[in-house]
Amino acid sequence: MQDDARHGLEMEPEEMLSLAGKAAEVLVDRTKALGNDRPWEGEFRAVLDEQFGGSPPEQGRPAMDVLEQAVRDILPFATRLDHPRCFGFVPTSPTWPGVVADFLCAGFNLNVATWLTASGASQLELVVVDWMRNWIGYPETAGGMLTSGGSAAIMEALVTARDAAGNPQIPSVYMSDRSHSALKKAAVIVGVRRENIRVVSSDDDYRMDMPELRRMVSEDRARGLHPIVVCANAGTASTGAIDPLGPMADFCADESIWLHVDAAYGGFALVTERGKELLRGIERADSINLDAHKWFFQPYEAGALLVKDLKHLETTFAMGHDVLQDTIWGANHPNMSDRGLQLSRAARALKIWMSVQTFGMEKFRDAVRNGLELAQRAAQYIESSAALELTHKVTLGIVCFRFNSSRGDDERMLEEINRKVLAEIFWSEHAFFSSTSLKGKFTLRICIVNHSTTWEDVKSTLDLVARLGHEASKK
Amino acid sequence: MQDDARHGLEMEPEEMLSLAGKAAEVLVDRTKALGNDRPWEGEFRAVLDEQFGGSPPEQGRPAMDVLEQAVRDILPFATRLDHPRCFGFVPTSPTWPGVVADFLCAGFNLNVATWLTASGASQLELVVVDWMRNWIGYPETAGGMLTSGGSAAIMEALVTARDAAGNPQIPSVYMSDRSHSALKKAAVIVGVRRENIRVVSSDDDYRMDMPELRRMVSEDRARGLHPIVVCANAGTASTGAIDPLGPMADFCADESIWLHVDAAYGGFALVTERGKELLRGIERADSINLDAHKWFFQPYEAGALLVKDLKHLETTFAMGHDVLQDTIWGANHPNMSDRGLQLSRAARALKIWMSVQTFGMEKFRDAVRNGLELAQRAAQYIESSAALELTHKVTLGIVCFRFNSSRGDDERMLEEINRKVLAEIFWSEHAFFSSTSLKGKFTLRICIVNHSTTWEDVKSTLDLVARLGHEASKK
Repeated sequence: MQDDARHGLEMEPEEMLSLAGKAAEVLVDRTKALGNDRPWEGEFRAVLDEQFGGSPPEQGRPAMDVLEQAVRDILPFATRLDHPRCFGFVPTSPTWPGVVADFLCAGFNLNVATWLTASGASQLELVVVDWMRNWIGYPETAGGMLTSGGSAAIMEALVTARDAAGNPQIPSVYMSDRSHSALKKAAVIVGVRRENIRVVSSDDDYRMDMPELRRMVSEDRARGLHPIVVCANAGTASTGAIDPLGPMADFCADESIWLHVDAAYGGFALVTERGKELLRGIERADSINLDAHKWFFQPYEAGALLVKDLKHLETTFAMGHDVLQDTIWGANHPNMSDRGLQLSRAARALKIWMSVQTFGMEKFRDAVRNGLELAQRAAQYIESSAALELTHKVTLGIVCFRFNSSRGDDERMLEEINRKVLAEIFWSEHAFFSSTSLKGKFTLRICIVNHSTTWEDVKSTLDLVARLGHEASKK
Repeated sequence: MQDDARHGLEMEPEEMLSLAGKAAEVLVDRTKALGNDRPWEGEFRAVLDEQFGGSPPEQGRPAMDVLEQAVRDILPFATRLDHPRCFGFVPTSPTWPGVVADFLCAGFNLNVATWLTASGASQLELVVVDWMRNWIGYPETAGGMLTSGGSAAIMEALVTARDAAGNPQIPSVYMSDRSHSALKKAAVIVGVRRENIRVVSSDDDYRMDMPELRRMVSEDRARGLHPIVVCANAGTASTGAIDPLGPMADFCADESIWLHVDAAYGGFALVTERGKELLRGIERADSINLDAHKWFFQPYEAGALLVKDLKHLETTFAMGHDVLQDTIWGANHPNMSDRGLQLSRAARALKIWMSVQTFGMEKFRDAVRNGLELAQRAAQYIESSAALELTHKVTLGIVCFRFNSSRGDDERMLEEINRKVLAEIFWSEHAFFSSTSLKGKFTLRICIVNHSTTWEDVKSTLDLVARLGHEASKK
């Protein structure tokens, strides 16, 4: 017995297969063509609105037409963050098993809220988080979960830190002037007043200035503030600088303040020897966030939060609820939703697990090392160039530089020229990158975290900057 | 010029297609078999850990083997929330175009953070959010964004409400004793002390008791608390009850308190005439969250937050950052990340848009109506049954009932029998549902929001409860 309603939102198996097959073809064609395509495309709101705005239709139309419209009119208008010459912001380049995993995860309709709703995927998340625990060098007491990204993970860390400090009346937090806006946003969310989000200057290497941190904390305590967390950068978004993790851990231990490390961009450098060395001390943090959708080659969204003592997370986030009274599974079967913000949760671990199983850690290590090495090579190339100037030493995969053929120091003119270069690059369709501001100095910035980026991609981009810079300075 | 490293994490097009093709086949086969499969499968941690725990491998293995292991050992151990007889918690049943959209979204590697990184998908999100705005009956000043789910949306609403109230020193929030744990979690996150999360009793219909709300707010103000938000339920998770939205809106207007409506489960009833009637007054709320992964048939994650006056969201969440200095696009081109927690954001709008375009609103309306009608029919069937008792009147798609053949009121014995029934159902493999607690009364509970559920699915489940109840009461 079946009624008509049953088939309203269903599809015949053949149609399902052909729709998914078409999607796969589109994606494979896109991947094949990517290096020869432009790294960015965008459109104005009015134009896009005309194409696909307006009310939802009462009647449907063939699924294949809908897919084709999405592929033609909607999806391409974006920064191709996985383009080998997309160096803007922190780009990303997902592996195919990761993409297929997201497809499976949606299709299996998994909700990794509790052990009962998804025991397989809950265990998988424990496994993947444990890999990260090992890479960090955290003890067995540590644990955590996957998140929508760094913003959520940082927010969850700050709530946990705030509660661990007894939820004081006037909390304050500390971060360097190179910290990511996600840290400020998280502090606002958890109820720290904007004036008590204390921004500590960074030193000449853009690392947190320890004497200033000491001074501020001591002053703030004197005026009745309660410092709940010090945030360190393990790879700033601007330059890749790593804050002095050891001294910060010493300071936080002395002062009984929670130390959080934002390793969203830099954390996965830990799978290489060089990264491990650079990030020494990270294992002393109380909590750490990393993004597998950045330097671990996964599709969005794949953040992670690890806490050195897992029980802090569950103390803060586990809530009871009548409707979930049947989900109790017994000891040692954690409900992943007890560890953070989300109750319903997609199975984010699947993509990480499938990618690593398919390629093996050796290839992942190589891919991360590729970024580290290309950045170093770019720095050398820039330093040996008469036209270019390195504006900050390279630590991880970010290279800050500018056109400066005259080795001049007329900042106003250098900014004008380099802004022109950036605009020209933007329209060149060869590469895409962005700029940043280093102590008021306008600087170009490339971030190399794509496993498919070659030296030729980097070199051709630097050469183009030199050429465009010469043109711009002649005008 | 290519070097070896380039191919470390890449795959040949043929392999990519065959991997995606296999995934599609697996998912289509799963869908075809779903109604005849059991609605739940679970496993113990030790067993799962043995199957796929341990360190990541140094060397990879064939992608197809990895996929097959995931499909065999990991993914099936879950509640099949899209099974036509899965009535537990709030189940979900995604449409295929929605699943394919998530595949496309991962493959296109979209990051809907700013207009510049994804103008197509940003516009698409505006379009889909505007559909929701219209269904609610919100004015043109309203807007919002898609979120990972209700928990994130509610948290964002509470931060916004707190800031709109001037971020007072001792904030308090109000919700009924039937409110979802996500509301408590959100309040904790935004810094409301646990003792100031004020739980208002509900009346006999499990709707917020207005005199008690009035009394509590007035008492709290007198002792120096600052009420920042009153939370209403538009469909409680336990019974589907809808709080008195009109009177709550009046009260909040009089008291200048932000009114948030948690419509995670019930919100999409708005696309039907009956739902519109039931939810009248919702358009007077300051903010509303809904989950398209619930009653709008999308894969996880697809939450939404709408705010009556959009500028409140951007006042709270927009942060500047050096590294994003190049993303400014000019007026009327919003950066979606300025509206909430996340910076990097998957393109959640694509699944909603593709599904609606493919099937049309008429079919979506039918599918939601199907749930409303089946719940009413179940209520009638229970009321006409000698063995079953309706424990709460049906409002939306949730039916609360229990075995009670003797019309007895020995609560202890009724609980014992019904707990036995629940356990038997759990192992029966015919259906999956859960229980709840109504003013201390243990009750069974089915939630009907699957577009593929038929009356036969519901009836056979109720008949099974009656049979198991008789057996349990004989023992």
